[in-house]
Amino acid sequence: MTATITKPDQYLPTELMGGLDDPIPSDELDPETEGEVKTKSLVIVAESGDLERTWATTILASSAAASGMQVSIFFTFWGLFPLVRPEIRMTGKNWMQKMLSVMNRPGIGHLKLSKLNFAGMGPWMMHRLAKQHGVAKPGELLEMAQALGVRLIPCQMSMDMMGVSADQLIDGVESAVGAATALELMAEADATLFI
Amino acid sequence: MTATITKPDQYLPTELMGGLDDPIPSDELDPETEGEVKTKSLVIVAESGDLERTWATTILASSAAASGMQVSIFFTFWGLFPLVRPEIRMTGKNWMQKMLSVMNRPGIGHLKLSKLNFAGMGPWMMHRLAKQHGVAKPGELLEMAQALGVRLIPCQMSMDMMGVSADQLIDGVESAVGAATALELMAEADATLFI
Amino acid sequence: MTATITKPDQYLPTELMGGLDDPIPSDELDPETEGEVKTKSLVIVAESGDLERTWATTILASSAAASGMQVSIFFTFWGLFPLVRPEIRMTGKNWMQKMLSVMNRPGIGHLKLSKLNFAGMGPWMMHRLAKQHGVAKPGELLEMAQALGVRLIPCQMSMDMMGVSADQLIDGVESAVGAATALELMAEADATLFI
Repeated sequence: MTATITKPDQYLPTELMGGLDDPIPSDELDPETEGEVKTKSLVIVAESGDLERTWATTILASSAAASGMQVSIFFTFWGLFPLVRPEIRMTGKNWMQKMLSVMNRPGIGHLKLSKLNFAGMGPWMMHRLAKQHGVAKPGELLEMAQALGVRLIPCQMSMDMMGVSADQLIDGVESAVGAATALELMAEADATLFI
Repeated sequence: MTATITKPDQYLPTELMGGLDDPIPSDELDPETEGEVKTKSLVIVAESGDLERTWATTILASSAAASGMQVSIFFTFWGLFPLVRPEIRMTGKNWMQKMLSVMNRPGIGHLKLSKLNFAGMGPWMMHRLAKQHGVAKPGELLEMAQALGVRLIPCQMSMDMMGVSADQLIDGVESAVGAATALELMAEADATLFI
Repeated sequence: MTATITKPDQYLPTELMGGLDDPIPSDELDPETEGEVKTKSLVIVAESGDLERTWATTILASSAAASGMQVSIFFTFWGLFPLVRPEIRMTGKNWMQKMLSVMNRPGIGHLKLSKLNFAGMGPWMMHRLAKQHGVAKPGELLEMAQALGVRLIPCQMSMDMMGVSADQLIDGVESAVGAATALELMAEADATLFI
């Protein structure tokens, strides 16, 4: 984990700030039924790929994992592009897929705001405000989430349609699955969010 | 069901591909508490009416139903327009409601992307990419969902505000209800998504 | 509560229309496990701050509370601005934060549509249509929600980044918290929605 954070203890649970390699002690988990310990779980469907929503996804996922929850994120449609490796400027096999990635540059470092984007000035301001207030960037939060065991699961259908191949995704991402697999996780989860 | 799908088994559960008229065998359902069989349930609030989000709604709903889940979709605000019959070009009783339907053409075959829409070029590309990769269109997926028993429930308040009448909606849609009824379903559901 | 509503019984549960100060009778709550009465709960993450989504949030929250559910709303990112007092035109301490509030005017009376906004004509039409059909405004619904005990919880990180201070928020809003606290509520909730 190479993320550098200024004043992270302000917003994130203390568990997130040290001892990332320590296992979560099992006595922190809430027993729900007698004799059985049930870890709480969260499933996020990350659909938008916008800066503010990707921020929300990575903050919620890393905080939940730090609190001992099991977290899975299913990345679909525009949500797939933040998972693309930073050095890859263009994805896609045909002109349509290539055009999509040109108009909607892949990589978690190049996200746009859903409004007030102003050709990149909005995101620049948001990142500056975040730095001033010690808020980690989405890319740093995603690294934390991975270190804390958050499962990153891409949608097979979106990968095929958008022309994104598995080797273009960042390390640690799981094999792509279909909607049915994501739904199984959701049916068992304590909280589900479509972001 | 008249939907034609090219390579659907790639993304959708096998149950979706044949025997749509067969009831889901009860032994496929997970027993949760001893002596009682509890079917998992999913409630989606479909608010946006954008192409990509309507696609997500219809994929998740049809896949969940095919896996034996009970699925209800509550259509509200912009989400109501995809439920309008394809032959109806304009809805609304007064000029404001008519203008809404002109700017935001009803029918699941006329959805716009929330970004990169480019006056219809974005959706055209998405549909072409979908066809190349054997992904069913939202309208086909909605038909499947209906065949699999997904409940389509319009929001009464949205229908009144937008000026959409019950006879303008596609066949099989339930009577419109208020938010309280949708909330009762959500309170009992295993997973809830606002899309 | 000063909200004036024309024909509210059409869309909202009867409980919402009278006796707001009466406690919800405990025998209306569903017993779930033997010997223990469990109130259903709803947690909404209000992220967008758009007119239609704020409307959805306030309708769902007030209806759920009127039906006896425990409701908490976690306001984050753009969702924070509707919580700002109506008389405050500009928030923020530095030029970037001030610019955000100029482009995205605070206060629940000044929300924009996510599409068809047309420099304010869309929201004006929506409000006129709402009035014609007896639908309460988001601000009125938020007041009802508060009167019914809905918890309004702002996100500390968003307040710091956006430069919104606690004294700029409407009365009755709780102290700001971090994501971990919101996640604890979500993990225990019967329904979770990201709006």
